[in-house]
Amino acid sequence: MRYVLLLAVAPLLFGQGDEVRKLLKDSEDAWNRGDLVVFASYYDDSPQTTFIGREVTRGGPEAIVARYRRGYPTREAMGTLTFSEIEVRALGKEYALANGKFALKRTAAGGGDASGRFTLVLRKTAKGWRIIHDHSS
Amino acid sequence: MRYVLLLAVAPLLFGQGDEVRKLLKDSEDAWNRGDLVVFASYYDDSPQTTFIGREVTRGGPEAIVARYRRGYPTREAMGTLTFSEIEVRALGKEYALANGKFALKRTAAGGGDASGRFTLVLRKTAKGWRIIHDHSS
Repeated sequence: MRYVLLLAVAPLLFGQGDEVRKLLKDSEDAWNRGDLVVFASYYDDSPQTTFIGREVTRGGPEAIVARYRRGYPTREAMGTLTFSEIEVRALGKEYALANGKFALKRTAAGGGDASGRFTLVLRKTAKGWRIIHDHSS
Repeated sequence: MRYVLLLAVAPLLFGQGDEVRKLLKDSEDAWNRGDLVVFASYYDDSPQTTFIGREVTRGGPEAIVARYRRGYPTREAMGTLTFSEIEVRALGKEYALANGKFALKRTAAGGGDASGRFTLVLRKTAKGWRIIHDHSS
């Protein structure tokens, strides 16, 4: 009986972590080809979506794109993004918590290397996992 | 029918926000009377609990107390804590997301005033709501 339960539950739990890790990989790839629109599409399209950086940004992909365009106006300022030390925790079936490290490799003209840590809270929507809250520092 | 559903769901949702707000108030009060042990007791007693500040701290109340004792060695360094702009979102029934602003009022000798933003993910445990992840910057 225990085995049956494990078999039933495991794909869900492993699936959640894998799906969120895939989203992070896809978002890293989008950033690294300079595609802010795809990068921002992983944020939930809702006025309740929040992004805490130096300032608080509210709103979905459109607000997120605007925020990033201000902070990273050129391809050189975007540099090359790498996520690492990623941890994903399931928060029930419909939510997940991800945290890890981000690193930007940049030329001196682009602003130089930068790094920090992020916390993401994600919600499973009809379109797949979407970020409802981002805290990066 | 819609009203019946609303009546059934509303107390749960409001309850969640109120309970988390009360925890924040209690935790603020504990800090302001210098009681780090009570302050840290609102963190989930688990090796999975994470606190992202300048460094990453892992573990429950004991690890949290040690972290704060290092960062705030005297009553003067602790100063007076105020949380504001608090937002609480339910993540299903067992989890919640809270974010807001923290401000420390301190003497120059205590390190001077400090402020920033926090993101908390909380889990409803048998003992009440407990913080499983804190990102403060």
